[in-house]
Amino acid sequence: MKNKLLVVGTMAYDAIETPFDKVDRILGGAATYIALASSKFDIDCGLVSVIGDDFEDSDLKILQDLDVDTTGVELVEGGKSFFWSGRYHDNMNSRTTLDTQLNVLENFTPNVPNHYRNAEVMMIGNLHPGVQLTALNQMSGKSKFVILDTMNFWMDHFLETLNEVIAKVDLITINDEEARQLSGEHSLVKAAEKIHAMGPKYVIIKKGEHGAMLFGEGRIFIAPAFPIEQVVDPTGAGDSFAGGISGILSNADKIDFETLKMGIIYGSVLASFTVEQFGVKALLDVTSDSINDRIEQFRTLTSFEWNEKQKNI
Amino acid sequence: MKNKLLVVGTMAYDAIETPFDKVDRILGGAATYIALASSKFDIDCGLVSVIGDDFEDSDLKILQDLDVDTTGVELVEGGKSFFWSGRYHDNMNSRTTLDTQLNVLENFTPNVPNHYRNAEVMMIGNLHPGVQLTALNQMSGKSKFVILDTMNFWMDHFLETLNEVIAKVDLITINDEEARQLSGEHSLVKAAEKIHAMGPKYVIIKKGEHGAMLFGEGRIFIAPAFPIEQVVDPTGAGDSFAGGISGILSNADKIDFETLKMGIIYGSVLASFTVEQFGVKALLDVTSDSINDRIEQFRTLTSFEWNEKQKNI
Repeated sequence: MKNKLLVVGTMAYDAIETPFDKVDRILGGAATYIALASSKFDIDCGLVSVIGDDFEDSDLKILQDLDVDTTGVELVEGGKSFFWSGRYHDNMNSRTTLDTQLNVLENFTPNVPNHYRNAEVMMIGNLHPGVQLTALNQMSGKSKFVILDTMNFWMDHFLETLNEVIAKVDLITINDEEARQLSGEHSLVKAAEKIHAMGPKYVIIKKGEHGAMLFGEGRIFIAPAFPIEQVVDPTGAGDSFAGGISGILSNADKIDFETLKMGIIYGSVLASFTVEQFGVKALLDVTSDSINDRIEQFRTLTSFEWNEKQKNI
Repeated sequence: MKNKLLVVGTMAYDAIETPFDKVDRILGGAATYIALASSKFDIDCGLVSVIGDDFEDSDLKILQDLDVDTTGVELVEGGKSFFWSGRYHDNMNSRTTLDTQLNVLENFTPNVPNHYRNAEVMMIGNLHPGVQLTALNQMSGKSKFVILDTMNFWMDHFLETLNEVIAKVDLITINDEEARQLSGEHSLVKAAEKIHAMGPKYVIIKKGEHGAMLFGEGRIFIAPAFPIEQVVDPTGAGDSFAGGISGILSNADKIDFETLKMGIIYGSVLASFTVEQFGVKALLDVTSDSINDRIEQFRTLTSFEWNEKQKNI
């Protein structure tokens, strides 16, 4: 029997402008990217999310064809799916949100299907902390490992509830500025220490084009972003990264610092494919061979050997 | 006989303010940091610079006691040494220059001593490109390897001369924004390709707290910054990094991509010590054992192994 991964998060349509191109309405949402990325692994992935009746059957079928269980995806009759519209600036690192229509997300109460309440891994995507907590509290308590993603908006407005969620998870993934905001520490080493004390045994700090840092078990691991020639659309990079981590952890016989390191490597590689095309296209097209090839390249990117002369300076 | 390293650059006094402390007048300058960092290696290092008669004998003696040859340091009677004053902001990543007094630097014409004109490695610190070119043209032509540091100010105002210098060097070290400005490419992979075409076989892109990238021989190497608990004073980090690279290259039997990788590792480690104390203090105090210890830690920071199950996803 395959290990189970439960993913809670948004399914959405995105309108995206970059300096080079523009799309009006393509499949998006954190849970979508996470599920597609984790579908590369031999696991049993279930989704908990909400969609309106404007959600295309063909888009749902993309997930189902990859054996993603969508029984936990609530369809709101007469409702409209979550919609996000944004414009990336010249440097592709910053963006302006042009429009956010919560739609069916506004009154979303997650309902985890019974057969995923004992999932080995639970990945809670970026959502209102109250919604995250509701889903978390539905688990049987036998979940081995809970991963949380969040962002500064929730820290600004719902810190108390967010702290309650953070206290219950094993791993939190946030970006560097959010880690600084949450901890009140500028040094990321100190920030991670403070966040450990809030609950999570492991902390992953995401730095976009600068890679990611893992803190836990008194150790640090740092991975660069996989260098690519041209970013076409950064949307979904963070969620593809989270999907790679979720996939590796769900598929692992045990979860420790070494497993998490490989999660970061797979996550970074999957994110590097995602940003090379618009939306989820690259995640759907990429082969296992291409993934494995970039993982081997990743090793040569960062490995070094010192010779005897250098050791004796 | 030891290999020779020629360092051309500034010697200065700095006044530095950080959120935590303040110093009025301490030893600084690119050439000073580069020479002190490279003095960790078993090489013959000579300096070409200029000072005023306000320069303390005791500061010159610090370098001489480390066997740095200062015959190429011109003393201008009645002149004042280069002075820089800056304030670091809360995040320690950005700073405001409060005062720059070029003083003796204004009319500096470098004069490379005869016994360094055939140096195995030449390290040209951040200076007016005209001054850099004058020094470069004094070399015997037998210099094996020339390293260039520069910054956006020279790109803005003296691009033509700078391009002439760049065409003659083997390695250029610049930061990510400068690489983008120089190449007109946002992607650092593409930026490095364009800069290769301008002359340098190797390009190192410095990203401060996010580490550094090396491009050359069709390969890429990426190193994070060594993570530390508390940055006390970032001044001299880039020059300590350059000093580590210069030292490793000067001490090497041959210079290739692998040598440059170790240069980046040593440079990053030396920079990590520099920023833990004000000015050059840490560079003077640090022992070989402490340096080697951080280099070993560096390897564990970035190395990973994947198991058979992970390979077969």
